[in-house]
Amino acid sequence: MEDVTNYINQISIDCVIFGYEDRQLKVLLLKLNYKGDFYSLPSGFIYQHEDIELAAKRVVRERTGICEDINLQHFNVFGNVERKRKEFLEKLIALNYSNAENEQKSSATYQWFTNRFVTIGYYSLVNIKNVVPTLTERDSSIDWFNINEVPELIMDYNQVLKDAYQNLQANIDKSKSIFSLLPEQFTMKELLDIYETILEKTFVSTNFQKRMLDLGILERLEKKYTGAKNKAPYLYRLKK
Amino acid sequence: MEDVTNYINQISIDCVIFGYEDRQLKVLLLKLNYKGDFYSLPSGFIYQHEDIELAAKRVVRERTGICEDINLQHFNVFGNVERKRKEFLEKLIALNYSNAENEQKSSATYQWFTNRFVTIGYYSLVNIKNVVPTLTERDSSIDWFNINEVPELIMDYNQVLKDAYQNLQANIDKSKSIFSLLPEQFTMKELLDIYETILEKTFVSTNFQKRMLDLGILERLEKKYTGAKNKAPYLYRLKK
Repeated sequence: MEDVTNYINQISIDCVIFGYEDRQLKVLLLKLNYKGDFYSLPSGFIYQHEDIELAAKRVVRERTGICEDINLQHFNVFGNVERKRKEFLEKLIALNYSNAENEQKSSATYQWFTNRFVTIGYYSLVNIKNVVPTLTERDSSIDWFNINEVPELIMDYNQVLKDAYQNLQANIDKSKSIFSLLPEQFTMKELLDIYETILEKTFVSTNFQKRMLDLGILERLEKKYTGAKNKAPYLYRLKK
Repeated sequence: MEDVTNYINQISIDCVIFGYEDRQLKVLLLKLNYKGDFYSLPSGFIYQHEDIELAAKRVVRERTGICEDINLQHFNVFGNVERKRKEFLEKLIALNYSNAENEQKSSATYQWFTNRFVTIGYYSLVNIKNVVPTLTERDSSIDWFNINEVPELIMDYNQVLKDAYQNLQANIDKSKSIFSLLPEQFTMKELLDIYETILEKTFVSTNFQKRMLDLGILERLEKKYTGAKNKAPYLYRLKK
């Protein structure tokens, strides 16, 4: 188990990392490096001398390999006393430790992990093509899951994920972070696909185009010639 | 100093309590019970066996006397390492303790308070007529301040307050908590006054009435007869 003495006790950071591919919203989940199918959100702790936003960016960086321009949106805190933590820890221990090893339970690190934790939730939107899903010593696997095919997660993480998704839907027009899902240059159709996927509804494309242009944040570039017979669409990018 | 051993270390709760009166948005602030003008937001800590939302409601209840239907909106966390805390504590100690008393500095409670704190921000909207601003042993005074006449607050609390106000403005239509500022029955004009005050702009009253009725959450009651010669306005209340 890792050295925990430099972290703030009883506060954790959970990151919901969203990506987008083939008209599917995806989320990066990991399986804990223990026997048993313990799926989790990428999470971490805060060093005593580290700002919490930097701690959250560190968690995203560790699991995605992305170093620059990590966008973060804080969406909620989860601080009920229980958070299904005890249930999870007991199951993990029963599956992974013999009675002989149970003396580990008295170790300071074990005590630290079994404390109550208040967790601070962030989500981050990333261009899936720039991500190299990366294992840490705590994970046995890490993969993208379609948002509608998320497995049972440990503790209250299914609820945490649901909250993040609802916040993303409610604030889709307010933040520019949605554009982090796309390459730097994109067509209006590609942006429309993302909106329709995230909001789970369809838009009339001319209305949608007007709504996007009215935001005043897009710059029109040259047309995208693909060699196909249909009309070449314009490319756009975020204004600098 | 109070007994801090039952609280979670290094996490605090800060509550921005908004009220409304005479076309002014107000905020409940207290002065710390120390020499020096240390103005603060109502704040507190979380008991080890207490959900964080209950801790936040306890803070609001302590300072307002309101027991039921306390609405709470989490708006942000503040977790930079410094948060101007050291500066504040040094000033407080210099003004309040002689050198002889400085041995207090070595006490466990003092050490506890000088730790770094991550704070969780909530705001609450209350009907000012139901509030009895209440001192705790930590306060020397507690008063309503016009949002535009807030004094210099300790630590990063002016920023915390600003964040809360911006969140309230951005989400005014989304939550029903705005109605907590009003008596149970109100006229459209009274609701309009609150919107104009909070959003710091004016609305055309017919458009505003349509916008409110379109939300589908208001129930129209009988007219409000005041005996005045002008046309009696309808009263409204939130649908049950």
